[in-house]
Amino acid sequence: MPDKVTDVIEELALANRILAHEGVLDAFGHVSLRHPADPGRYLLSRSRSPALVEPDDILEFTLDSEPTRPPKVQLYSERVIHGCIYQARPDVIAVCHHHAPAIMPFAVAGKPVVPVFHLGATMGEDVPFWDQHDEFGDTNLLVVKPEEGRSLARALGRHSAVLMDRHGATVVGGGLKELVSRAIFMCQNAEYQMRALTLGVPQPLHRGEIKLAGSINLQPNVVTRTWEYWTMRLEAAGAMPPRRTATKAARRPVPKPSRVTPRERRKGRRR
Amino acid sequence: MPDKVTDVIEELALANRILAHEGVLDAFGHVSLRHPADPGRYLLSRSRSPALVEPDDILEFTLDSEPTRPPKVQLYSERVIHGCIYQARPDVIAVCHHHAPAIMPFAVAGKPVVPVFHLGATMGEDVPFWDQHDEFGDTNLLVVKPEEGRSLARALGRHSAVLMDRHGATVVGGGLKELVSRAIFMCQNAEYQMRALTLGVPQPLHRGEIKLAGSINLQPNVVTRTWEYWTMRLEAAGAMPPRRTATKAARRPVPKPSRVTPRERRKGRRR
Amino acid sequence: MPDKVTDVIEELALANRILAHEGVLDAFGHVSLRHPADPGRYLLSRSRSPALVEPDDILEFTLDSEPTRPPKVQLYSERVIHGCIYQARPDVIAVCHHHAPAIMPFAVAGKPVVPVFHLGATMGEDVPFWDQHDEFGDTNLLVVKPEEGRSLARALGRHSAVLMDRHGATVVGGGLKELVSRAIFMCQNAEYQMRALTLGVPQPLHRGEIKLAGSINLQPNVVTRTWEYWTMRLEAAGAMPPRRTATKAARRPVPKPSRVTPRERRKGRRR
Amino acid sequence: MPDKVTDVIEELALANRILAHEGVLDAFGHVSLRHPADPGRYLLSRSRSPALVEPDDILEFTLDSEPTRPPKVQLYSERVIHGCIYQARPDVIAVCHHHAPAIMPFAVAGKPVVPVFHLGATMGEDVPFWDQHDEFGDTNLLVVKPEEGRSLARALGRHSAVLMDRHGATVVGGGLKELVSRAIFMCQNAEYQMRALTLGVPQPLHRGEIKLAGSINLQPNVVTRTWEYWTMRLEAAGAMPPRRTATKAARRPVPKPSRVTPRERRKGRRR
Repeated sequence: MPDKVTDVIEELALANRILAHEGVLDAFGHVSLRHPADPGRYLLSRSRSPALVEPDDILEFTLDSEPTRPPKVQLYSERVIHGCIYQARPDVIAVCHHHAPAIMPFAVAGKPVVPVFHLGATMGEDVPFWDQHDEFGDTNLLVVKPEEGRSLARALGRHSAVLMDRHGATVVGGGLKELVSRAIFMCQNAEYQMRALTLGVPQPLHRGEIKLAGSINLQPNVVTRTWEYWTMRLEAAGAMPPRRTATKAARRPVPKPSRVTPRERRKGRRR
Repeated sequence: MPDKVTDVIEELALANRILAHEGVLDAFGHVSLRHPADPGRYLLSRSRSPALVEPDDILEFTLDSEPTRPPKVQLYSERVIHGCIYQARPDVIAVCHHHAPAIMPFAVAGKPVVPVFHLGATMGEDVPFWDQHDEFGDTNLLVVKPEEGRSLARALGRHSAVLMDRHGATVVGGGLKELVSRAIFMCQNAEYQMRALTLGVPQPLHRGEIKLAGSINLQPNVVTRTWEYWTMRLEAAGAMPPRRTATKAARRPVPKPSRVTPRERRKGRRR
Repeated sequence: MPDKVTDVIEELALANRILAHEGVLDAFGHVSLRHPADPGRYLLSRSRSPALVEPDDILEFTLDSEPTRPPKVQLYSERVIHGCIYQARPDVIAVCHHHAPAIMPFAVAGKPVVPVFHLGATMGEDVPFWDQHDEFGDTNLLVVKPEEGRSLARALGRHSAVLMDRHGATVVGGGLKELVSRAIFMCQNAEYQMRALTLGVPQPLHRGEIKLAGSINLQPNVVTRTWEYWTMRLEAAGAMPPRRTATKAARRPVPKPSRVTPRERRKGRRR
Repeated sequence: MPDKVTDVIEELALANRILAHEGVLDAFGHVSLRHPADPGRYLLSRSRSPALVEPDDILEFTLDSEPTRPPKVQLYSERVIHGCIYQARPDVIAVCHHHAPAIMPFAVAGKPVVPVFHLGATMGEDVPFWDQHDEFGDTNLLVVKPEEGRSLARALGRHSAVLMDRHGATVVGGGLKELVSRAIFMCQNAEYQMRALTLGVPQPLHRGEIKLAGSINLQPNVVTRTWEYWTMRLEAAGAMPPRRTATKAARRPVPKPSRVTPRERRKGRRR
């Protein structure tokens, strides 16, 4: 019997592969989804390159980024990125951390990405920077400690994305398809902005245009059309994920909501 | 029984997929064709990514961009681009609106594309700009109102293409294959022009060369050869559109010409 | 019964597809071979995109670029490029004319390509420019008249390649595999040279290095290894040409050598 | 009966194809592995493009780069690169020499590659240059003489990679997977560094970050995950190498360790 959780787990596996196929994720990077039945949990793959993720790889985590069951597999070391953002931002339903080639020059040069075409407007008027070195000094640049995750979430603030110096970017969405769309078009925008610099001075969208184009391009009919397009491209490449196995689905019942009040979540549960 | 309309509908579906496969169209963008039996109508797909368009997706529209039958499907919101240009330019048989990566840096930096190699000459001596903000202030940058479409058509004027600031480009042709050829080579030209800037100052073609190279490269034997080449590449990728279904063809008879006098069409039917 | 001519015709079809697959040729461009049994003739495909060329498309031409049999098919309009070079350069066995994306920025900016890595050395110390406008004023930029072909051949001189302003390049070789290797590595060299400009000043090879690296990289064991590699890539893409049909082979006997004395050929038969 | 040597030979063939598929190796370049049973020998393919290498192509060489059996096939002319580095660096288990497009602009412009993102840190704080012309004057730029190989090894010193002016790069690793990972991420790093220059000034990692990120990214769980990813990509492209043939395996017994004392190896056996 298919259920809501199986549906979203399959959709999350698909999102992993779409983002890999469209050049946002590669060997590394990850994408998560807030649990549809419990806002105090989130879904994320075991440690695996996103292009390979299957529904059966998807595990449940608390917002402290602890697995809800003792894991038998390797976990992503940077999952606090997800947990800390879900804590700080109750409006966020999906999170993607990546090192896409299109945004790396900006993360390396410390230059801001700004919306330069209508589809780039979904990233918002500006994208803040976060330099792990500022607060934590020399590290291996991975975001593994809760305080590092919380610091990143603070830098993200109310924005839709944050650039991480010498590392990559983290993008959030009010839904999975919205997130996928924003992540892909932010990369296209960065590419056009950089290439426009060869010709002259890139002209960003007017502030009012960013608001209007940003919201129209997150309309369900728009993100549904792009989702269909990217899925078709994945299918044409023979790279679709398998379905979730039935036994797996049976074994994993819908969890009881964890005891996090909406207010706690709004406060981001900073301890 | 195959008929002329079925033929051009299949050709239009093929043009959609060729332009997608050659990097002009992606999730967005659209290409239309004036109706072969009625210059007061045009053919355009339902709202769908061009790489997915099938003959059965193709619908008929009046030059006011209203569907000739009550639609059961989502329509492209920007179809006034097509209708308004067909009204203003009786010589135009096919229209393509796109956001190709090759031209985006020019649309973002506001720098003109000029013909720098013989195959680029089919775009003509210069390509005007149109900034939706100039006349309409803050918008979501989509061209959805008739007055926006007419404004764009005025900016296009007698040219073969128009760049749209912070948005993309619209290209026209005196035939579908001519349009496809111009759109693709304009992208190549833009790419070479931009890369030549890294080396020094791109040398545009002499005015006389633009005329001569522009016309030779629209000769039927030339556009037929490129059409064969791009079709073969699409076939090799296993991405050819299906044929039109027989019932669909039977159900949709050749329309009676709409009551638009050639003079009205020449005047562009501005109301 | 396979014969020498059938072998080279199949090899020429393969060269067409290799050069297309490796990004030197696209919808346009062509590659020819001096006839193995008659230096006064050459072999070239009918007008067709190189990626599609089959052995049965290959026709014979005199050095005046006239087909040796009345043609039933469309011919390349620019075949004088080939004939005039074979007349002027008895040492040349194969010729390729192309508009590869890698060299176009140089042809557009009028900046010289110079060998910047060992494999680029096969193009020689320098590559001259030819601007059709200098001698012929406004044209459609196609090289179609014998005097245009002869002018181009003069600009080529004793060099291995010539850049054609606002048009492309023509490359020659003392053998087909040598030509293919030179054409491909000249493109790679151009690419590296252009990208090195972003970093600083590209350092060309020393004069002595050009001579030594240029000759080692044309050794049979080297061009055989690259030929094997590019053939494998073509095979992996499922794009190999078919064999020559037996009837075709039977119908086309080895021609009697044309009456061109070696001295005439050395003089380039300029009339 | 599968054995350790067959395993590593198959792994080395796989490494050849992964590096080719990920854009590090092309028609040229080679990758070798120190013999697992005898540090005085190394394994390297016969002369063949890496994308084509099969386990049965892999031969054994002494550290003087002589084949341990009389060869019936063509050998890479530049194998002293491998032998001389294994002599000079007992800690080195795998060596790759390549001309990847990503690093060529640096080798051409003589500009250093520096780590600009965490995954690039595995190349170390700096990558020295070696200009064959400095010591050997005009050559064909191939590293074929033992003195050339030793000179290159001296330039490499204790570093993880060395750039070769107007030629390419050589990268080393303490294991095969480590080498593959370093070679691929060094290319990505070079690409991001070059593109960041279009935007402004690339910010290298802090010295402490290089150490910490460099070591975490060589952890077995990290290189295993990337190895799985790159293998999957190779499989998806249908480009996996075949297994080693059984007879071949039977015929080639594990060699007795050659008579090189560890001390001799540490001294690099310079004669």
